[in-house]
Amino acid sequence: MRVAVVGCTGLVGETMLRVLEERRFPVEELVPVASHRSAGRQVTFAGRSWPVQPLSESVFAGVQLALFSAGAAVSREFAPLAVRQGAFVVDNSSAWRMEPDVPLVVPEVNAGALDTLKEPAIIANPNCSTIQLVVALNPLHRVFGLKRVVVATYQAVTGSGREAVQQLKDELSLGRAPHPVYPHPIAMNCLPHIDQFLENGYTREEMKIIQESRKILGEPELAITATAVRVPVLGGHSEAVNVQLVKPFDLNQVYRLLEEAPGVQVVDEPTKNRYPMPITAAKRDEVFVGRLRRDPSAENALNLWIVSDNLRKGAATNAVQIAEYLLQRGVLNR
Amino acid sequence: MRVAVVGCTGLVGETMLRVLEERRFPVEELVPVASHRSAGRQVTFAGRSWPVQPLSESVFAGVQLALFSAGAAVSREFAPLAVRQGAFVVDNSSAWRMEPDVPLVVPEVNAGALDTLKEPAIIANPNCSTIQLVVALNPLHRVFGLKRVVVATYQAVTGSGREAVQQLKDELSLGRAPHPVYPHPIAMNCLPHIDQFLENGYTREEMKIIQESRKILGEPELAITATAVRVPVLGGHSEAVNVQLVKPFDLNQVYRLLEEAPGVQVVDEPTKNRYPMPITAAKRDEVFVGRLRRDPSAENALNLWIVSDNLRKGAATNAVQIAEYLLQRGVLNR
Repeated sequence: MRVAVVGCTGLVGETMLRVLEERRFPVEELVPVASHRSAGRQVTFAGRSWPVQPLSESVFAGVQLALFSAGAAVSREFAPLAVRQGAFVVDNSSAWRMEPDVPLVVPEVNAGALDTLKEPAIIANPNCSTIQLVVALNPLHRVFGLKRVVVATYQAVTGSGREAVQQLKDELSLGRAPHPVYPHPIAMNCLPHIDQFLENGYTREEMKIIQESRKILGEPELAITATAVRVPVLGGHSEAVNVQLVKPFDLNQVYRLLEEAPGVQVVDEPTKNRYPMPITAAKRDEVFVGRLRRDPSAENALNLWIVSDNLRKGAATNAVQIAEYLLQRGVLNR
Repeated sequence: MRVAVVGCTGLVGETMLRVLEERRFPVEELVPVASHRSAGRQVTFAGRSWPVQPLSESVFAGVQLALFSAGAAVSREFAPLAVRQGAFVVDNSSAWRMEPDVPLVVPEVNAGALDTLKEPAIIANPNCSTIQLVVALNPLHRVFGLKRVVVATYQAVTGSGREAVQQLKDELSLGRAPHPVYPHPIAMNCLPHIDQFLENGYTREEMKIIQESRKILGEPELAITATAVRVPVLGGHSEAVNVQLVKPFDLNQVYRLLEEAPGVQVVDEPTKNRYPMPITAAKRDEVFVGRLRRDPSAENALNLWIVSDNLRKGAATNAVQIAEYLLQRGVLNR
């Protein structure tokens, strides 16, 4: 199969290449695409070097699958052009996620949203914080019903790309960053500010968590709120989540449900100091869930702590899983 | 006045000395006390050097005020001995906080709990995370009533003392810490683990936030839950707080209330990138509140973001404020 990776030199794009390799996705011809600034660069994939192509409409000729991770503006312009030339597009930007006709998919949760697809189309890959949240919440939602969800995130700098990683490293080693991407230092700090602020006082990131979770879980009215915070962590997003369920639950039943849930790994032996953490979630594809405990402050409520590698399950792995599903269904052909 | 500071070489103890100086607390004779390991050391206070006294019953002779910050075991043993010798003890440990007869005080909230004191006694200084939370919640509680509170904390390593600061610094500079105090690395990590785990799955820190808030606010049944997380921040605790109020509110009214509330500074101009952060709360005594926004996921709900310097308002400043109140009331004599 001819596969394009748009934004191949970014942190997510690079991770997409690694995940495609690891999972032995049937890539015969790789089309690594980036901006003109990356012209002349090569990427390594499946043991050989591939020249990076500057982004233009023509790179999509003959491409059957295009994974986009080059920002919303690029996706808005080029994803339809790729589709028109016969490619299924899995788009990691926010450009298409809330379009009613565009499936927004976390395979463990709503792969079925892909079942009506027969022809090349855009499929949206959700926000990193949303993916790990819905993977953990979906099993509870199916069995007990979600009444209300309150999320506080602890998000890593890799979620803002390579320049943000540099900012953190510069601040830690030099005391200041020559080219900051955040409006304030991130070293030794917490920034309650991810993406732009909106009229309602929420950030775009917070609204993504709210709106995308509703769409993926198929609950357009789900009561959910979020505070999204950047922390000085390199990789791995964490979430403190308070959930009120509709039906009464037994905590052991919740454990079993989560242990059996696809994509979830329960890590919850607090007295042995075992709980999910960014440093142990790194380079893993699972969504790690722990600190499960009943919350007596509301009926049928519990607290949990959810951690996942934001570049993998939060972005690249989820996108590749979507492509794998299309392949299994025979919509995407080898 | 003869004032003892027990634990004077620790981060909180040192901050107590600085705050006593800054606020010109009428210290005539300082008795800096620490463990035998600190024997021979000196502390600087009010322009002169004072020899550190090793902890023993006799150091409290003639002491009118003793500020303790040397751990619960020390406080349990020595605070009553200090009181017996005529000292008012303000104790920063968790030893006495939940004793029904011991006032647990945040002056902006419940200074009145001190009004019945006539004779030397132990007064408990609350947990750092609790103090900043109740300072911000109290005005809302008084006017609208608190129906339910969900807290997620982002706590700095200074809350664990000097060795924890060293762990973070060593991990950042050497890649590892020779003498870690946390069970896992804290650099580039989030630890959902502060203080010990209890049978119910909560940590002691989380239960302190829950139980101490109830006691200080005078609401023994307050519906409140917490997740306490250590983040790689040097100083300044942050909290993402979701509040359901009993009565309907207007957001402007909430702003005004908080702006007028003692000890609170509202920092909430998101479009100018102004919101509370650990690095800007450092060395300040206020509790900074921002990111105020209505939460449509529940009736009369709002989200807020609360940051304060955990060594100052979260510990030393609050303790000194308690002493100042006793002084003003004439219970403590110059």
